[in-house]
Amino acid sequence: MASRQREISVSEFFLKNRHLLGFDTPAKALVTAVKEAVDNALDACEEAGILPEISVEVSDRSGKSRVIVEDNGPGIVEGQIARIFGKLLYGSKFHKLSQSRGQQGMGISAAGMYGQLTVGKPLHIISRVNGEKLASEMHVSIDTARNQPDIHRKKQLKWDRPHGTRVEMEMEGHYQKGPHSVEVYLKQTAIANPHLSITYKDPQGQELHFVRSTKKLPPRPAEIKPHPYGIELGRLIQMLNNTKSRTLLGFLVDEFSCVGRKTALKIIEIAGTHSDRKLSDRSHPRHIAHVQAAALHKAIQKTRIMAPRTDCIVPIGEKQLLDGLHKELEADFFTVTTRPAAAYRGNPFQVEVAIAYGRPGGAGVEVDATGHLRKKQAEEPPAAENLIAQKDEPVRLLRFANRVPLLYQQASCAITKAVTQTNWRGYGLHQPKGSLPVAPMAILVHVASVWVPYTSESKEAIEPYPEILKEIKLGLQECARRLAHHLRHQTQLHQEYDRRTYIEKYLPHIGAALQDILALSNAERDSTVRKLDDVLHISRTTQRAEP
Amino acid sequence: MASRQREISVSEFFLKNRHLLGFDTPAKALVTAVKEAVDNALDACEEAGILPEISVEVSDRSGKSRVIVEDNGPGIVEGQIARIFGKLLYGSKFHKLSQSRGQQGMGISAAGMYGQLTVGKPLHIISRVNGEKLASEMHVSIDTARNQPDIHRKKQLKWDRPHGTRVEMEMEGHYQKGPHSVEVYLKQTAIANPHLSITYKDPQGQELHFVRSTKKLPPRPAEIKPHPYGIELGRLIQMLNNTKSRTLLGFLVDEFSCVGRKTALKIIEIAGTHSDRKLSDRSHPRHIAHVQAAALHKAIQKTRIMAPRTDCIVPIGEKQLLDGLHKELEADFFTVTTRPAAAYRGNPFQVEVAIAYGRPGGAGVEVDATGHLRKKQAEEPPAAENLIAQKDEPVRLLRFANRVPLLYQQASCAITKAVTQTNWRGYGLHQPKGSLPVAPMAILVHVASVWVPYTSESKEAIEPYPEILKEIKLGLQECARRLAHHLRHQTQLHQEYDRRTYIEKYLPHIGAALQDILALSNAERDSTVRKLDDVLHISRTTQRAEP
Repeated sequence: MASRQREISVSEFFLKNRHLLGFDTPAKALVTAVKEAVDNALDACEEAGILPEISVEVSDRSGKSRVIVEDNGPGIVEGQIARIFGKLLYGSKFHKLSQSRGQQGMGISAAGMYGQLTVGKPLHIISRVNGEKLASEMHVSIDTARNQPDIHRKKQLKWDRPHGTRVEMEMEGHYQKGPHSVEVYLKQTAIANPHLSITYKDPQGQELHFVRSTKKLPPRPAEIKPHPYGIELGRLIQMLNNTKSRTLLGFLVDEFSCVGRKTALKIIEIAGTHSDRKLSDRSHPRHIAHVQAAALHKAIQKTRIMAPRTDCIVPIGEKQLLDGLHKELEADFFTVTTRPAAAYRGNPFQVEVAIAYGRPGGAGVEVDATGHLRKKQAEEPPAAENLIAQKDEPVRLLRFANRVPLLYQQASCAITKAVTQTNWRGYGLHQPKGSLPVAPMAILVHVASVWVPYTSESKEAIEPYPEILKEIKLGLQECARRLAHHLRHQTQLHQEYDRRTYIEKYLPHIGAALQDILALSNAERDSTVRKLDDVLHISRTTQRAEP
Repeated sequence: MASRQREISVSEFFLKNRHLLGFDTPAKALVTAVKEAVDNALDACEEAGILPEISVEVSDRSGKSRVIVEDNGPGIVEGQIARIFGKLLYGSKFHKLSQSRGQQGMGISAAGMYGQLTVGKPLHIISRVNGEKLASEMHVSIDTARNQPDIHRKKQLKWDRPHGTRVEMEMEGHYQKGPHSVEVYLKQTAIANPHLSITYKDPQGQELHFVRSTKKLPPRPAEIKPHPYGIELGRLIQMLNNTKSRTLLGFLVDEFSCVGRKTALKIIEIAGTHSDRKLSDRSHPRHIAHVQAAALHKAIQKTRIMAPRTDCIVPIGEKQLLDGLHKELEADFFTVTTRPAAAYRGNPFQVEVAIAYGRPGGAGVEVDATGHLRKKQAEEPPAAENLIAQKDEPVRLLRFANRVPLLYQQASCAITKAVTQTNWRGYGLHQPKGSLPVAPMAILVHVASVWVPYTSESKEAIEPYPEILKEIKLGLQECARRLAHHLRHQTQLHQEYDRRTYIEKYLPHIGAALQDILALSNAERDSTVRKLDDVLHISRTTQRAEP
């Protein structure tokens, strides 16, 4: 048995488990490939301070698909191209704590590996760095047994772009419309990235343009050190062993965010009360024993430490999110909230929630400019891939992590869990037990973090860490309160309209009856009816002003 | 930017993403650690042909847990211990197609890595190979930056076991009762492994014994070659390049299962019609061009090839599964089915489905030995962690893959998907739209395969590949038909009991009325009533014999 024990290359592992990377079915593989390339393009542009302009082209011929994604990013230096596209677990984003779309160094090489597996074709890359005279062109595949890139052809060529990258992939794919389509992915990407301009050419040759609504790039997220809360003991010990600091005080201040001299001294003081062996601010990190480290770990949890810095996280922003929603979907009522930053396992994160409720005109009644109630003309429901549910359907969830839409694995996502665990009946919605609420509504949730804990390497759902669940729920509650207020108002308008219609219908009869009973003249009768109408109108107006 | 591009060690990757391996919360981490150790123990015993006897001990002190798992397996040779326990992606099961619990070479080292991360303690291993005088003892941790084992202490010692392995882990853990407890994991393991004997000592020091119900080991699954259906073109090309065969004919016969000379010649013949370039049975595999390989790939899908061999898969078996269910849970009605083997992506698999319905006595009426209907005494519902749902709850799912119970990620599992997509109303059950049916019922599904496609490295759910979904649904339908028959019979018994009670109540009145109308004597009246009763009884009996 012993002789059969062998090392497993990470590429072999993921080749056999390609569904872990999002390449299980041809339809999903196609969307995943587009997503990985677009995510990379966006990260590269933003990091270089360039307003992203991306073109996506998909063609599909009897089960064989071609995806071309081209960006105006900074380009990739020739020496790095092969490894970036032809090696799993290679990249610049894993070893730092900084908000970005990619983080694992796997996505685009995985797309390449899938193409290689299904149609046997390498990736075709052209990239030009600003200032270089020529662009580099390369065909790259992965040697899966060694997880190393194989370069097939390589040359320099003229390219009309001053800088940018173009990647072309062929694979077994299946183009489809609907909620899991390239269109929906791009549409949602446009919502979360209002500074992005996309041109999309679909397999029928039709072009779709998503125009940017702002020329302002989002601020660049700061790179940070881990927050001391949530650092595991074992990681603390590893950090103590690897630090360049030569004192415990220096270690705490240098290796963590939110720890100043004063907080560090406090931690060391509290740690002293937890351990028999002395600990001082001048203790050498590498000479700290296991029990002392354990005491230090306990002390950190007991010390009051500032909340994480927020400049490491760049939320979309309430205004931008509202603009994006207004641009891409039509609804009767919008609300949005950005929560303050929090942390899980030492990683800062921030949650944004938005709700879009009702088909336009869905409420059926409105107050017109003169203050009178009137029936509202229901507008045509917009065609195509609508992001708002029908009124007898579960609400649509628009899930985002670091500005990337999550299209698959909804059932296992922290966002879904938070929505189903929220009591929507309390806010006036119908909700089957343990399910999503049923309403003509879309709920958008964005989780931004320096490290998003995805439930699998395909990055399709967020792991429900308790701290993350809690923040999403708080955001949902805030939006739900505002929605409930809107719905109450709608209900009032409705009731009032009904009442008014009813009264208007009977007012003449009441007048006639009063005339009989009180022996009024016709003029007296009409004036009484008018007065009644006025009184009823005033009471309604007061009611309306109430909330 | 280029200078920051770096390689990411697989251990670092999973350390940062420890939830991918099932170590997100302390409660789950504890169960996962037990599971990984028990899975390994079972695999080792069965591979060596030893009836497994396993002891599990869990202790829990203020958030710090200790897990000890000991087996009577074949033991591990000293030179392999460190790598098996201290390196991710290392093992004997990845590179072969053969049904086993472990397949990735990650589980137990991941548990060690988690312990190291949270409490800073290495794994403690003792192992003795049969025939060796002494056992080897080792403390092993992982150097995560290099994904290599670190051995801390190592010695030879006397051990009373002739052969076996003992692993002791310390970690941040939280012991809990309920559906995600160590007890439930072990109970379900006992159901799926009737040849297994487990002793479990919980943190309160209480011992629980799961006694084996058979002394027969399951037959050893054969190791196989991939089935040609579902092999991707890229993989085919890779296989052509790596084969030792020097002719195409030899390649097809040697590298695939279910392909004999005749089938291989047929494939080559069909491939010839798809490609301009000639292909013969004597073509050298390494000289086959891309277009020819593509033609070969197409030809394979068009050729009729035998279904996969079934000796590579060892289902639990209908009888054993029924025995296991009877032993561990009480219900009114049991049914079980084992589907024939099928394949996805070239990997053979087989599905077993069982249903346990109703609390004992739940139907309320039964036919007694004399053929008469009578009220049935409802038995006490069994206490503790019951595996059958209450009658107003969604059914309980007992999910298994290669005899291992799956406790987490139910929502994203192919088994859950298949159950919710089955129309249970057609079989007489209540089922909210898109949900699990609501009934006092447990559904057990076992998927056995030479390669189970899990949705994440923690192996908690099965990826819903279409072929797998289909087979599970067919199994469910078969069981559901039998259940529907049982339910119809129950309903009939009920209706009949009601009718009989009703008639019995009114028969004397009918007699009296007849006496009045027909002027019968008392004796005639009584005889008429008796005859009526008989006639009605016969019609009922006939009815009962009908289905």
